[in-house]
Amino acid sequence: MSRTTTIGVIGGGQLARMMYAPAISLGVNLRLLAEGPDVGAARVIKDVVVGDYTDDATVREFAAGCDVITFDHEHVPTRILRDLAAEGTLVRPGPDALEHAQDKLLMRQRLTRALAAPAPIWRHCPDAATLQRFGDEMGWPIVAKASRGGYDGHGVWKLAGPQDCNQPFDESKDASAGELVEIIGEEFIDFARELSVLVVRSASGQAVCYPVTETVQREGVCRETITPAPGLAPARAAEISRLGLDIADELQVVGVLAVELMQRRDGSVVINELAMRPHNTGHWTIDGAHTSQFENHLRAVLDLPLGDPRARDPWCMMVNVLGGGVDDLTSELLHCFARDPRLRVEFYGKQLRPGRKVGHVVCYGDDLDEVRGRAQHAARYLMGEIREG
Amino acid sequence: MSRTTTIGVIGGGQLARMMYAPAISLGVNLRLLAEGPDVGAARVIKDVVVGDYTDDATVREFAAGCDVITFDHEHVPTRILRDLAAEGTLVRPGPDALEHAQDKLLMRQRLTRALAAPAPIWRHCPDAATLQRFGDEMGWPIVAKASRGGYDGHGVWKLAGPQDCNQPFDESKDASAGELVEIIGEEFIDFARELSVLVVRSASGQAVCYPVTETVQREGVCRETITPAPGLAPARAAEISRLGLDIADELQVVGVLAVELMQRRDGSVVINELAMRPHNTGHWTIDGAHTSQFENHLRAVLDLPLGDPRARDPWCMMVNVLGGGVDDLTSELLHCFARDPRLRVEFYGKQLRPGRKVGHVVCYGDDLDEVRGRAQHAARYLMGEIREG
Repeated sequence: MSRTTTIGVIGGGQLARMMYAPAISLGVNLRLLAEGPDVGAARVIKDVVVGDYTDDATVREFAAGCDVITFDHEHVPTRILRDLAAEGTLVRPGPDALEHAQDKLLMRQRLTRALAAPAPIWRHCPDAATLQRFGDEMGWPIVAKASRGGYDGHGVWKLAGPQDCNQPFDESKDASAGELVEIIGEEFIDFARELSVLVVRSASGQAVCYPVTETVQREGVCRETITPAPGLAPARAAEISRLGLDIADELQVVGVLAVELMQRRDGSVVINELAMRPHNTGHWTIDGAHTSQFENHLRAVLDLPLGDPRARDPWCMMVNVLGGGVDDLTSELLHCFARDPRLRVEFYGKQLRPGRKVGHVVCYGDDLDEVRGRAQHAARYLMGEIREG
Repeated sequence: MSRTTTIGVIGGGQLARMMYAPAISLGVNLRLLAEGPDVGAARVIKDVVVGDYTDDATVREFAAGCDVITFDHEHVPTRILRDLAAEGTLVRPGPDALEHAQDKLLMRQRLTRALAAPAPIWRHCPDAATLQRFGDEMGWPIVAKASRGGYDGHGVWKLAGPQDCNQPFDESKDASAGELVEIIGEEFIDFARELSVLVVRSASGQAVCYPVTETVQREGVCRETITPAPGLAPARAAEISRLGLDIADELQVVGVLAVELMQRRDGSVVINELAMRPHNTGHWTIDGAHTSQFENHLRAVLDLPLGDPRARDPWCMMVNVLGGGVDDLTSELLHCFARDPRLRVEFYGKQLRPGRKVGHVVCYGDDLDEVRGRAQHAARYLMGEIREG
């Protein structure tokens, strides 16, 4: 390949945006298929096509100029990707893997059958009556999940009793936009905390695993991560890493696989869901690991050997910044940088709408309490929650 | 500033290119004035104007759309920058500082008078006869330098005796392109090694200093850096840091100031030259320091508080990659990344002409010999000098 290699990225959010720095370093061209000219990644990436990723012709034309296709999100219709792959386009991760991140029912079925992977007790519920029977058997509350289209807490319902069982079917119908959405009933897990493990697998099958991360969600949105997960028993960390590697291998994932887990009070874990792209719970790796999830995702997609996923410091904490509290993030850095010369920030180039993830901060160091205090202060300041040091 | 801040960068080489990643992270727009559409930075930066930086109208029009102007190189005519600054444009570093990086005679005069800064014995030589007298007094060989336009060893002559004294005047006339070029005679320093210290100073006057770096030049081109400079006495390192900070303050530099030094066998140092922009001897900071020189340059230019310049590991080594030995750098990464999962690479997006700097590699760690071996192997491999592990 004496000409420059082009990686096509579908979706113009912050994940595509954060892929750009390692693409520049590696000397590869990133071509973006963006929802609009003003989305976060389209503001900085040079080679941008604006178009609809649900339109066959748009995606096909975009792919024709790329050596390989990858993703900022999981919403490209599987049908389009299957056609592309059948025509010889390198789609990484491929549609057979990706649909397990798109479809939670398929994911539960496959991981249960092939790997007996730890999961909440679950059942496919074609109707409200089946869901109610499942709840009566399990004891209430239970959880219902839409098989497709969920994100940041959408598409998940906690059901207190039989009277709630129509809600998932009513609300998922509204959101389904033509895709077939199924409802899964799941045992309610009164978890102690949430964990995440990120695996990166290359096209040739090499895989690396980042340290297991504790994630703090509020209202379904990832707000903080701590790496490594504090107090996690080494044997449990090894079990979780093996689980991540097994899933990546079973599904033949290429690129980042994020496995979100719930940890019970007895220490055992169950899989919550999968993502196949760089993940919010891996943003710490930009500053905290030898090789970031974004660089390793690109390497995996290019089938280059993967970089060291280990952490450079004993503790690393990421806190997301939500919009709404301040008018301009960059000018707020005056305080934040003066207070903490080791603070790392990443802004996503988005409009600062309330509640929207518009950036994150990262701190690393030897002492968890100190690291946590610095990171939380900076994020709260950038959200306008505090106005002095 | 509720709209996005725009930093204008004049010059489209690798330094502008490497400013882009931190600009994206900080949420600021980088607008480039590039020599052509295909230069390294113009290939990746979205907001590019192609034009001639020696043309008043071009630079003025470019500056009109920017909140502040900074540089990839020191070749913009001082006259243009003075006019811009007089009209109220923020030019950082300003022309009064910058001319000390553009004009070696001015630099020697100012640093000698204001700071009694350590320098080789030097004399302004208006003609060959004066240069010959200087050589006769000093003893041969001596060094002659053109006051302007030198880079990578050009504009520097080692003179063995009186017979060589016309050469600097003849050759600098050819290269002067209308700028007044003076010749400086300098004592020949039979140095033990070369060192570099990078200071970053913000518009408000805050300054930070990176660890002193040993630099290895071949044929006038920086080939390797080792940080910190091995075996440098702590008192000497402190003296060099103070010298850098004093120069930045004396010249009111805004942004990165690189002070290149020669170290004699007795340990004492003399200043070789100055640069006021991110510098080849600071590329290690991208992977090796808490805050890179590129991010700190942008912060300085934006007058934001500066980040921690300290190294994250005991040793960090950078080796430049020169073009000519391989057809495609990215594909050569197959070997390099497989051999060393912690290898860091940065490619400059340039055509791979022989002898041209087209990228660099960085390794860091606890053991200098191990770090050096990894970095040198990778760079040699990427230059096509070796073909097995």
